[in-house]
Amino acid sequence: MTTGPAYVSIDWGTSSFRLWLIGRDGAVLAERRSGEGMTVAARTGFAEVLESHLAAVSAPEGLPVLICGMAGAKQGWVEAGYLDTPAALAAIPAAAVRVPGVAADIRILPGLAQRDPAAPDVMRGEETQLLGAAAGLGSGDRLVCMPGTHSKWVRLSGGTVAGFSTFMTGELFEAISAHTILSHSIAGAGTVSGESAAFRTAVAESVAAPALATNRLFSVRAGGLLAGLSPDDARARLSGTLIGVEIAGALSLVAEGTPVALVVSGGLGALYRAALAAADIATTVIDADAAVRAGLAAGAKALWSL
Amino acid sequence: MTTGPAYVSIDWGTSSFRLWLIGRDGAVLAERRSGEGMTVAARTGFAEVLESHLAAVSAPEGLPVLICGMAGAKQGWVEAGYLDTPAALAAIPAAAVRVPGVAADIRILPGLAQRDPAAPDVMRGEETQLLGAAAGLGSGDRLVCMPGTHSKWVRLSGGTVAGFSTFMTGELFEAISAHTILSHSIAGAGTVSGESAAFRTAVAESVAAPALATNRLFSVRAGGLLAGLSPDDARARLSGTLIGVEIAGALSLVAEGTPVALVVSGGLGALYRAALAAADIATTVIDADAAVRAGLAAGAKALWSL
Repeated sequence: MTTGPAYVSIDWGTSSFRLWLIGRDGAVLAERRSGEGMTVAARTGFAEVLESHLAAVSAPEGLPVLICGMAGAKQGWVEAGYLDTPAALAAIPAAAVRVPGVAADIRILPGLAQRDPAAPDVMRGEETQLLGAAAGLGSGDRLVCMPGTHSKWVRLSGGTVAGFSTFMTGELFEAISAHTILSHSIAGAGTVSGESAAFRTAVAESVAAPALATNRLFSVRAGGLLAGLSPDDARARLSGTLIGVEIAGALSLVAEGTPVALVVSGGLGALYRAALAAADIATTVIDADAAVRAGLAAGAKALWSL
Repeated sequence: MTTGPAYVSIDWGTSSFRLWLIGRDGAVLAERRSGEGMTVAARTGFAEVLESHLAAVSAPEGLPVLICGMAGAKQGWVEAGYLDTPAALAAIPAAAVRVPGVAADIRILPGLAQRDPAAPDVMRGEETQLLGAAAGLGSGDRLVCMPGTHSKWVRLSGGTVAGFSTFMTGELFEAISAHTILSHSIAGAGTVSGESAAFRTAVAESVAAPALATNRLFSVRAGGLLAGLSPDDARARLSGTLIGVEIAGALSLVAEGTPVALVVSGGLGALYRAALAAADIATTVIDADAAVRAGLAAGAKALWSL
C-alpha cells in the first residue's frame, strides 16, 4: 500500500480549480484542472464541485483534503481568515480551518494579512506557494516576486513573511487595454513577448522614472498618432510601463542588493524574467505550480504526518 | 452697429460643443452648449450641427467662424494639423485651416505636437486656452496644469510652449472605477471632494512615493477588507493616488520652484486646488472657460482684425 492515495490537495482560486491526488510516497497519482473557481463554485456549490472531482479521480471515501486559495475567502466555502504579518510560514498549516458538517477531514489554509494602516494588504493562495518555495529560497532577507492579476512582492526574512505589497498590474493592463483610448492603439496586437524591444525599453523607462507612468501610458496613444507606433509595440509599451512601475515600487521598499526570486508559471514567467533583466535585476526562478503543490504537501505533512 | 455680431467662436471637443456669438465690442451676445461633440458630429455631419446652432442664435449669413478642438482632428471635420513644439502661442491663429466648399470664412485652429521620440505628445483645444491665458500668466518659465480626462501639464517659457506632458488621470479613474475589483470598494460613493482627508493624504503619499501608485490602488481594496474603509474614502483614495502621481510626474520635468498655474473650470478646479495644496504647491488659478473664449478672441483678432 505504499503507493496508494494518501490525501488530496487543491489550489482553489478565483477562476480556476486544480486538484491533485497524492500518493503515500508523495507522487501525483491524478490531476484535475477546471474553471470551477470560487466565482463558479459559489453558485454551483463548493461541496458539489469537490465531490465531482473526487469521484473523477476515484478517490477513496474519507481521504483528507487540504485546500488553499479563495475557497477560504469570505465569499468562498468556509472563511479561513488570515495570519497577520510578520508571519512564520511554518505556522500556516496549523491555522487551517476545518470544513464543518462533513465526515471527511477537509481543511482550508488561511491567507496572510498586513494590518499596517498605511499599507493594508492581503493574500490568499500565494502564502502556500511561499511555504512550498521556502526551502529553495534559503535563509536571509529576500524579495519574492509573484506575478499575476494582482502581483505580490513579498519581503521574506528567513522563513518569515516580514511584509508584502500587491500591485494591480495584470488587472490594470486588462482594464486599460479594453476600456480606454489605448484600446484603439493596441487593436489587433498579439500577446506581448519578453523579446520585444519596446517592452524592455518601457520597463527600463518606468523603473527609472515611475512618476511618469500615467504620462507614458498616454504616449502610447500619441506615439501611434505621430510616429505610427504599431499595435504590437503599443501593447508591449503598455505592459512594460505597468510592470516597470511595479518593479520600481517593490524595490523602493527593500535595501539595495536584496536578492530577488521570481515564483511564476507559464507565459508570464518569460515576460517577468525579461522585465527584471531589463531592470538589471538578477533573479532565481521557482516554478509556481510546483511551489503550490510543495506547499500543500508541507501542510499535509504538518497536519496529518503524511 | 457697434454692438452687432462680429464673429462666432466655437470650442468643439470630443463630447461637447460650445458656441458663442461675439459682438463687435467683444461681448458675448449669445451662447449655445450641447453634447454634439466630434463623436456625435462625425455621424450627423459637422456642417449640419454648426448650421443648426447658427440658426438658433440668429447669426447673420456669412459671419466668420473660428473653431478650436477636436473638430480639427483626423476623425473631425477638416484636419487642422499640429504646430510642433517649441511653439509660439502667437503663431497659432495664422496656422488655422479654412473649411473648404462653404461660402463663409470658417477656420479651425491647429493642435500642438511634441515629436520627441522619447516623449511623443499631442494636444488639441488646450493650445487655445493657453493662448487666452498667456496674458494673465506673464513672462518667464512656468508650469501650467490643465486637468481633465487627459490632463495636460505645459512647460511655458514666456509665450512659447517649450514642451508638455499628458497624463491619463481622468480616463484611468473612470476605467479603474468601473472595470476593476475596486468597483466593489467604491460602490455607492459620492463625488470626490477636495475637503476629503482621505483624498489629500492619498495625493501626498503619491507625490512622495509615486512608484507605489499601483500598489496603493490595491490598498484601497485591502483597506476595505481589513479596516472597513468606506466607499467615499475608497473613491477619494483612488482619485488622490492618480492625481498625486500626475503631480509628481509633472514636477519631475521642471526645475524646483517653477511657478505653477492651474487652468480649470467647474468641480475639477476645487479638486486640483486641494491636490496641489496637499502637495505644497502654490498656484495661480485661471478659469478655463474664460481662457478658451479669450484664446478664440485673440485668434479672431489676429485673423480678421476683429
